Amino acid sequence: MTDETQEQQITAVGNEMSASFLAAKKRSDATLAAIEQNPGKFTMLTGDRPTGRLHLGHYFGSIRERVAMQNRGVNSNIIIADYQVITDRDTTEHIEDNVLNLVLDYMAAGIDPEKTMIFTHSAVPAENQLMLPFLSLVTEAELHRNPTVKSEMEASGHALTGLLLTYPVHQACDILFCKANVVPIGKDNLPHVEITRTIARRFNERYAKKHPVFPEPAAILSEAPEIPGLDGRKMSKSYGNSIMLGATAQETAKLIKKSPTDSERRITFDPIGRPQVSALLTTAGLVTGRDPKEIAEEIGDSGAGALKAYVIESVNSFLEPHRARREELAKDMDYVRDVLAEGNKKANAIANETLEQVREAMGMRY
Amino acid sequence: MTDETQEQQITAVGNEMSASFLAAKKRSDATLAAIEQNPGKFTMLTGDRPTGRLHLGHYFGSIRERVAMQNRGVNSNIIIADYQVITDRDTTEHIEDNVLNLVLDYMAAGIDPEKTMIFTHSAVPAENQLMLPFLSLVTEAELHRNPTVKSEMEASGHALTGLLLTYPVHQACDILFCKANVVPIGKDNLPHVEITRTIARRFNERYAKKHPVFPEPAAILSEAPEIPGLDGRKMSKSYGNSIMLGATAQETAKLIKKSPTDSERRITFDPIGRPQVSALLTTAGLVTGRDPKEIAEEIGDSGAGALKAYVIESVNSFLEPHRARREELAKDMDYVRDVLAEGNKKANAIANETLEQVREAMGMRY
Repeated sequence: MTDETQEQQITAVGNEMSASFLAAKKRSDATLAAIEQNPGKFTMLTGDRPTGRLHLGHYFGSIRERVAMQNRGVNSNIIIADYQVITDRDTTEHIEDNVLNLVLDYMAAGIDPEKTMIFTHSAVPAENQLMLPFLSLVTEAELHRNPTVKSEMEASGHALTGLLLTYPVHQACDILFCKANVVPIGKDNLPHVEITRTIARRFNERYAKKHPVFPEPAAILSEAPEIPGLDGRKMSKSYGNSIMLGATAQETAKLIKKSPTDSERRITFDPIGRPQVSALLTTAGLVTGRDPKEIAEEIGDSGAGALKAYVIESVNSFLEPHRARREELAKDMDYVRDVLAEGNKKANAIANETLEQVREAMGMRY
Repeated sequence: MTDETQEQQITAVGNEMSASFLAAKKRSDATLAAIEQNPGKFTMLTGDRPTGRLHLGHYFGSIRERVAMQNRGVNSNIIIADYQVITDRDTTEHIEDNVLNLVLDYMAAGIDPEKTMIFTHSAVPAENQLMLPFLSLVTEAELHRNPTVKSEMEASGHALTGLLLTYPVHQACDILFCKANVVPIGKDNLPHVEITRTIARRFNERYAKKHPVFPEPAAILSEAPEIPGLDGRKMSKSYGNSIMLGATAQETAKLIKKSPTDSERRITFDPIGRPQVSALLTTAGLVTGRDPKEIAEEIGDSGAGALKAYVIESVNSFLEPHRARREELAKDMDYVRDVLAEGNKKANAIANETLEQVREAMGMRY
C-alpha cells in the first residue's frame, strides 16, 4: 500500500479514528507477518451477505485472498450472514437461491469445504444466543457511535431497525463463537472489529478473568484494490455495472459492449478524467495481471471498440475455468446443499462448545 | 378494580397511552372471561428475574394467580429470565442459587412441574435466536419510546446497555417461542406486551401471511393489590422490608418486630396518614383474608406491640405449610435440578419447532 492510499483511508475513516486506525494497521501488518510464520495458529472468519450473486469485485476484493489463506493453512471459516439481509429490508426473497449460489461460487473459486467451514448463521442457534450476553457488554451510546451503521442506514433509505443498530454485536457473535483471531476486512468495517475486541475484552474481564474465553481478534486490512464498475461508478448490482462470476460468456460480452465510454478515440488510463474508459482498463489489468497503462498504450488509437473486445476476451478467458467448475458443481445441487449442511453441523458443534464455556463462566449451568 | 384505581393506572402509564390502555383493559377482561369458559385453549407465560428470593409481595402479586391458572387447566409456562439479570448489572453473582431457590418457591407454592413448564431462557438457544428476526421488525425509535426501559435505566443508575434497550424484544422471544396467547402483567409492563403484539403481527404480515406463525398475545392486567413493605415503602430486597417466603419463622418474627411504627398508641388503618402501621395491617389482612380495618379495630388501644404480635403469628401460620414443603423439597436438590433440566428440555423442543417454522416462513431452510 502506498502512503497516498493509506492517507486516503485515514481520511475516509474520519479524523477521530486516526489513532485507532494506525494501531489497527500496525496490528494488521504484524498479524500478516505472524500468519506467514505459523498459519496454523490462526483462525479466520470472513463472509458475505446473501443479497445477490458474487461479482468480479468480490473475487479480487476478498475471495481470492480467502483461497490463498485457506491454502496457506489458516483455519478458515466463511459465514453466509443471512440475517444481515434483513437489517435494512423487509423481505428475504430469493434468499435460498442467493445462499446456494454463494456456496457454488466459493467452491468454484477454490474454497475447499474440507478445509474451510462454510455456514449460514441462521442455522446456528448457540452462536445467535451469544447476542444476549454480548448486548449487555456494550452501551447504547457505543452502538450509536458506529459510523458504518449510520452510513448504511442512510444508504438504505430505511428506518434504523433494532437489527441494524445491533448488527455489529451480531458480527461479534459471528467472529467470537468460533474464536477467530483474524478478520480480513475493508477499512470501513474497522469499527465493527473494534466492537468485537471490546466485547471479548469485557467478557473476559467480567466473567473469565482466570481463563479468558475469547480472543481479541486482529483485523487484517485488505490491500486489495477497489474495483470500479464498468461505468466507472462503484461496482453494485443495482447499477447493473458488475461482471458476475456466474454469468455466461455471452452475458458478459453483452454487458461489456453496452458499457459507456467517452467520445475521445485514443485510449488512455486516467481514472479521474476518464473514469469509464479507465474502469475497463482496470478490469482488463486485473484479470490479465498487466498494467492498465500498458494495455491503454497497446490499444492506442484503435478506440473503445477495440478496448471492449480486449476486455471481453480477457475477462471471459479469466473466468472460463471458474465458470466451468461452477457449471459442473451446479449439476449436483444436492452435494452443494450437503456441503452447507455439513458446515452448519460443524458450526453448531463449535458454537455449542463455546456457549457451554460462556454459561460456565457466567455461572449459568443449571 | 374500582374506577379510582383504574384512573390511577391510566395516569401512571402516561396520557398518550390511555387509549391503548383502555383497549388492553378491555382485551384483558374479555380474555379472563374466555379463560373461564375454556382454559385449555390458552397458553400463559409468566416469569421472574432471578435477582434474589421471592417474598410475600411476589406471592400475592403473581405466584398465587399462577397456581390458580395452572389448576384451572391453562397451559402454563414459567420463565426464569436469567439474562435479564445483566440488563443493568455487571455480574451474575449468586445466579445459580437464585435460580434454584425460585424453583423451590414455585413448587412449594403449588406449581406442579407436571403441569407447568419451568425453564431458564439461557438454556434455550432456539428461543434466543428469535432475537435476530425480531430485532429487524422494530425500529430503534420504537425501542426508545418504551417508558419502562427508560425508568428502569434511571432506577438502575447504570448506563443504558444494548441489552436493556432491546430486552422488550427478548421478552417477545420469551412469550412467542411457546406461542403464549396470555401474559399476566402489572400495568407497567403493558408496553412490553404491546411490542410483542407488534412483532407477532409484523412477522405474520411479512413472512407468514397465509399461515400465521405467532399469536398476538393478550395481556391480563393483574388486579392483585400492591403490597407495601413492612416500613410502608415499596417492598424491595434492598430496603430490607420484605417478608421472604423462604425465611424461617424466627427470622420473620425478628424482621416484623424491628419494623418501624409511629408514636400513636391506637391502631387505625390509614395508608396515607400512617403508612407503616397500615403496611402491617395490610400484610395481616392479606394472609388472614380479613379486612385490615377490622384487625385495626380489634387491636385498638393495645398498640404496635400487639399489632406486631398478631402480624407475626398470622404471617408465620400462613407461610408455615409453604415453608414445610420448601424444606422438604430442599432436602433433594438433585430433584429440583431435574425439574429445571426437564423444563429446559421441553422448552428446547418447543423452541426448536417454532424456529423451524420461522425459518420455513422466511425461506431460510437450507
